[in-house]
Amino acid sequence: MNNNQQSPKKRIIDVDIHESVLYKDLFKYLDNPYRRYIEDANWIQEKHLPYTQPSVAGVNRADAKTPDGGIAGSDLPFMQEQLLDDIGHEYGILTGALDPSPSSMHGWYEMATALASAYNDWQIENWLEKDERLYGSVHINAEDPSGAVREIERVGSHPKMVQILLPIDDKMWGDPYFHPIYEAAEKHNLMIGMHHNEPPIYYGKWPRYFIEWHSLLPTTHMMMVTNMIFNGVFEKFPNLKLMMIEGGFTFVPHLMWKLDQQYTDLRHEVPWIKRKPSDIMKEHVRFCTQPSEELNKKDFLSVLDQMGSEEMICFATDYPHWDFDSPHRAIPNFDPDLKKKLFSENARAFYPKLK
Amino acid sequence: MNNNQQSPKKRIIDVDIHESVLYKDLFKYLDNPYRRYIEDANWIQEKHLPYTQPSVAGVNRADAKTPDGGIAGSDLPFMQEQLLDDIGHEYGILTGALDPSPSSMHGWYEMATALASAYNDWQIENWLEKDERLYGSVHINAEDPSGAVREIERVGSHPKMVQILLPIDDKMWGDPYFHPIYEAAEKHNLMIGMHHNEPPIYYGKWPRYFIEWHSLLPTTHMMMVTNMIFNGVFEKFPNLKLMMIEGGFTFVPHLMWKLDQQYTDLRHEVPWIKRKPSDIMKEHVRFCTQPSEELNKKDFLSVLDQMGSEEMICFATDYPHWDFDSPHRAIPNFDPDLKKKLFSENARAFYPKLK
Repeated sequence: MNNNQQSPKKRIIDVDIHESVLYKDLFKYLDNPYRRYIEDANWIQEKHLPYTQPSVAGVNRADAKTPDGGIAGSDLPFMQEQLLDDIGHEYGILTGALDPSPSSMHGWYEMATALASAYNDWQIENWLEKDERLYGSVHINAEDPSGAVREIERVGSHPKMVQILLPIDDKMWGDPYFHPIYEAAEKHNLMIGMHHNEPPIYYGKWPRYFIEWHSLLPTTHMMMVTNMIFNGVFEKFPNLKLMMIEGGFTFVPHLMWKLDQQYTDLRHEVPWIKRKPSDIMKEHVRFCTQPSEELNKKDFLSVLDQMGSEEMICFATDYPHWDFDSPHRAIPNFDPDLKKKLFSENARAFYPKLK
Repeated sequence: MNNNQQSPKKRIIDVDIHESVLYKDLFKYLDNPYRRYIEDANWIQEKHLPYTQPSVAGVNRADAKTPDGGIAGSDLPFMQEQLLDDIGHEYGILTGALDPSPSSMHGWYEMATALASAYNDWQIENWLEKDERLYGSVHINAEDPSGAVREIERVGSHPKMVQILLPIDDKMWGDPYFHPIYEAAEKHNLMIGMHHNEPPIYYGKWPRYFIEWHSLLPTTHMMMVTNMIFNGVFEKFPNLKLMMIEGGFTFVPHLMWKLDQQYTDLRHEVPWIKRKPSDIMKEHVRFCTQPSEELNKKDFLSVLDQMGSEEMICFATDYPHWDFDSPHRAIPNFDPDLKKKLFSENARAFYPKLK
């Protein structure tokens, strides 16, 4: 082992990079009539945050705008220069930019499915096959599980597709309605990557301010992990694994304690669950470091100690979003073994397609 | 100081006891036409959990049924024997049993307000004035803030009323619409006690199983603390304090880290917030121990250490509910000073009406 392997500089596996797309980029991959609905009829997706992101340049880092003025994350050479080469990524996993995810669109399944397919083709041609470091996410319209399975069959065996992306939204992904998606995931050796989309929304109401909405994102991750576990997804699909993206990890000890205690009290309601939820989490669920809460070394280590695991947390930058985490600042300066786990080995062990 | 003062036996302040009521108990305090709507027309409140509580005796401890077969928590002498005398309560705070809270009822404000008033009168006459250890909560219909203020004016200065009860439901309590309630609370030296009612519900949907719903209750407490802080309630009402009831406390370090970090990034969206959210929480917010996650001593202490405070947690039994916490089992056997804080002194410092 040389020094480079121990330094974050050369050993980063970044599990959350947002590439950007404009509808016009998808035209060549979209059949009519869907292309014409966008190009000629100016259709756009209907769901968006009611807030702006109250940061210097909106949702993205101000310095990530591309040299020709394009939106951040839309230019591979610039991303290579600013992110992959500068930080020294070994691998980066693309998590997409359709806003919202096709799985979060309302109604009109055919359009959502067509958009997801076009997006996957665009991603493969323009990103995954142009940089050996980049791996990707299969986008689907999960509202239509049979259509979603067809899309997974179509692109899921691509060697650089590592997961299926599910947005956290108004769906409870543990519901048996969605289980065909997990069957297809297992078949193609794909993980599930979950990333919040619109929630937290309660009773159809939004919090008054973006800072509230954004502060509460981890609660939606807690909801989904709970839902997947108690609905028996990991008992039914023992090879399925779940990466919780962009929700952070400091809530994990609480969630493990809470679910284990509730399992002790109430497990006869869910007799298909045969193990403590924390054991299911240790085997099947991973959490991103980002957005980092900038813990000091002592607090960070105490969270790991409470979790009883150093394997459950994977580094992510969330490039090019405004709350991007630099590997040089987001994680305390731990000893080389722990750094290696957090920066690369935990993710490598989790995604079987990463060598 | 004698031994009794150091032992939990004689120094328990229990901040969550559910007394029980039947509509017929309220008839003598209800004016017509409201009494007749219930007595003659068999009206009942419309909102209830869709689940049963999958425990031996539903929502209550099986052994808390009263000697004459009445519902648990409905008989003062039996509660005195089974709870107050047996455990050795110094004080207990009643948090009510109207299901749902009048503030959670839909429409028909007059009925909700009449029920809240009748409940307060019944509580004062049958509980607060019959046992010197028992203190109470002012029930209101907060959907109608001016009616709520009238009720607070009517009973809030009763020497044994310590807080105003607000249910966690589809309302965002930090909204300025509800601020007249906080003004009245400050005037009468009342705290706010928040206790979940129906959530977690997302987009009007319930989780499939009770165990999911119940495991996620802390997320609703996180939502409300966040909402109260970022909407500036504690800046506007500097004497107001908030007790979060029946949500536990192990999520608090995460919430403090998260809100502080978000405040660092996004505070120009909420310029009325002048301090770190964790400092606001330390001054204004307390959390119940119950439902205890049965942490071992080391993990419990590490949570306190992460919070940077031993003052924010107050003991509660949640008697007579099925997940009742005994002081002999819910809290590890800490040294006398810490035990005293958790079992009584933190609550005493928080509720000015408790001597």
